Amino acid sequence: MGSAAEQTYREVMTIEPPAVTTPLEQFSRDFVFGEVWSRPGLSRRDRRWVTLTCVAAADAPGPIEDHVYAALNSGDIELDAMLEFVLHFAVYCGWPKASHLEMVIARQWHRIQREQGREPAPWPVLDNATLGPNDWEARLARGVEEFVDVNLVPAPPAETPYRHAGILNFVFGHVWQRPGLTRRERRIITVACVAIDDSPTPLTTHVGSALRSGDLTKAEMDEIVLHFSAYYGFAKGEALHDAAEK
Amino acid sequence: MGSAAEQTYREVMTIEPPAVTTPLEQFSRDFVFGEVWSRPGLSRRDRRWVTLTCVAAADAPGPIEDHVYAALNSGDIELDAMLEFVLHFAVYCGWPKASHLEMVIARQWHRIQREQGREPAPWPVLDNATLGPNDWEARLARGVEEFVDVNLVPAPPAETPYRHAGILNFVFGHVWQRPGLTRRERRIITVACVAIDDSPTPLTTHVGSALRSGDLTKAEMDEIVLHFSAYYGFAKGEALHDAAEK
Amino acid sequence: MGSAAEQTYREVMTIEPPAVTTPLEQFSRDFVFGEVWSRPGLSRRDRRWVTLTCVAAADAPGPIEDHVYAALNSGDIELDAMLEFVLHFAVYCGWPKASHLEMVIARQWHRIQREQGREPAPWPVLDNATLGPNDWEARLARGVEEFVDVNLVPAPPAETPYRHAGILNFVFGHVWQRPGLTRRERRIITVACVAIDDSPTPLTTHVGSALRSGDLTKAEMDEIVLHFSAYYGFAKGEALHDAAEK
Repeated sequence: MGSAAEQTYREVMTIEPPAVTTPLEQFSRDFVFGEVWSRPGLSRRDRRWVTLTCVAAADAPGPIEDHVYAALNSGDIELDAMLEFVLHFAVYCGWPKASHLEMVIARQWHRIQREQGREPAPWPVLDNATLGPNDWEARLARGVEEFVDVNLVPAPPAETPYRHAGILNFVFGHVWQRPGLTRRERRIITVACVAIDDSPTPLTTHVGSALRSGDLTKAEMDEIVLHFSAYYGFAKGEALHDAAEK
Repeated sequence: MGSAAEQTYREVMTIEPPAVTTPLEQFSRDFVFGEVWSRPGLSRRDRRWVTLTCVAAADAPGPIEDHVYAALNSGDIELDAMLEFVLHFAVYCGWPKASHLEMVIARQWHRIQREQGREPAPWPVLDNATLGPNDWEARLARGVEEFVDVNLVPAPPAETPYRHAGILNFVFGHVWQRPGLTRRERRIITVACVAIDDSPTPLTTHVGSALRSGDLTKAEMDEIVLHFSAYYGFAKGEALHDAAEK
Repeated sequence: MGSAAEQTYREVMTIEPPAVTTPLEQFSRDFVFGEVWSRPGLSRRDRRWVTLTCVAAADAPGPIEDHVYAALNSGDIELDAMLEFVLHFAVYCGWPKASHLEMVIARQWHRIQREQGREPAPWPVLDNATLGPNDWEARLARGVEEFVDVNLVPAPPAETPYRHAGILNFVFGHVWQRPGLTRRERRIITVACVAIDDSPTPLTTHVGSALRSGDLTKAEMDEIVLHFSAYYGFAKGEALHDAAEK
């Protein structure tokens, strides 16, 4: 098992596999790399979204640096998509951890530029036009539409600040509509976020609509559940598993 | 939208708003500062309790430093109240994160003294008398009373160590009775903590009693829900929202 | 691998292993039961403390019920020790999740009594004398002593409510001194709690003192790291691992 697992490690982490000296390292090498990352059924880019969500939510300093580096250095995820991911992650797992993640991304991106002997490319410039329509009526109407489209249930009445200023104006009125990540990718990231969060209703809703929309097949969801469990543990993994079985 | 959002940023964070270069920063400026912090319906001090709870629970190193600095530097929260907050937060979100938070508070408070060119004021001295009655029977009896007063339901029998040594002796027998924070402030902090924690019963209980006691109006709770969601994410925010609608 | 893993499942969970139908269930059976629970180097009771901490912290409704049942039904953990665990867990992972855990313990304990056809044994009665010395000076002095004894570093000055009313009066002035769990068991539970929490300083401190005190050997800690990672995931597991390697 050693050498196939090492090869997978090399491809995923983009560095030489270090020597294994503890039970955890052994397990990580044999199981996480040897048996999870190497499975078919989900692309490496998709597995990266699950992994990045888990390490960012766990606020695990070393793994965040390593996986951000690996995702960018492998070319599996471009800088723009990575920064778009941060915003989506912020919405579902909170802004404080997203802020730390973003500092890591800048640091690792500069490291990669240096390692490759390049002049740092100019940082992408954001255009305010990307913020979308600023006519509130239009924005809320479009938010309702997007809510229905994503969740496959009617939008709730906008009768609380959470729903009005938050859900309909911002989350569905803007974030889910942004370019930079496909809706299927936003679903994968959201599923991992709500699994970490483990509030029952969002978990059931987002797993259910990801499957019923056809954006993710049951077999893909099963892979997400396993990959998530390896990175965020069985305790939460089982709740995600149960939501996917409903 | 830019300039009102920048002004709110300046007032809340007590520093000049940095340039925005990523989707997350854009979101933070336009949505969190431009549309959440600027809302009426909840004082800036109250919004700080929600924010501080969220960043401390997220264990996000940068944001903890920034928000502790801003809360103290603005004068919105005095050092004594901030230190009292740490104890309350420790009870509901666990002692380890509280320990980190307290180190940050000491560091930022010294920084503020230096920036203002002051001799560091002497650190507040605590009197053992503030620990309350030290007769166990009296303390437990008072704990039962406080439990009922806060939760608006009968106290549970003290038949487990958690309830006996913990809930009735310490949490309600002492912490909730301490001066330094009003009960309303302890409710705001507790609501944010149980929303992060996401155990359904404590969430329902604390949100319900905060409303039924009249300490928080429904409109104030709605503002807490939105502010919390902006900082800790919409996944947990939705569970809090649902608890407030019951 | 199947039948040894099934036998371990039967011994740990105290029920017949259900059929495996998803990748996650397969992984759980083969890896978690087949390769983690079956390892030597840590007793089954010790592995239960790690597991119970992880499922309780994850707020995973199904796994909490299953593991509480299994721990009590196997006889590995007595009701008294389980209830003592709840208080210790509350301190480090917060009271709300502890409250849910305690409800589950009562429910599963009654279920076991019924399944065994017994009259429910009377619930243990607690004596106020177990709350310890009620002279504040004596209690704080004893708290300082216990702090030093557990942490192997000087106690901090009691100059904040968190340290005065909290750490020295309650956490070390009382909880760590209670009978019902050995200090070594409190260390195992604390290590799992601070690993979940992800604050760097408490993690380093508690892992370090557990090792330097001789209460846990490095080989035992390695087993804890692996067992923890299986239940709470690699993202947090790696931070625990790194703390143990320092």
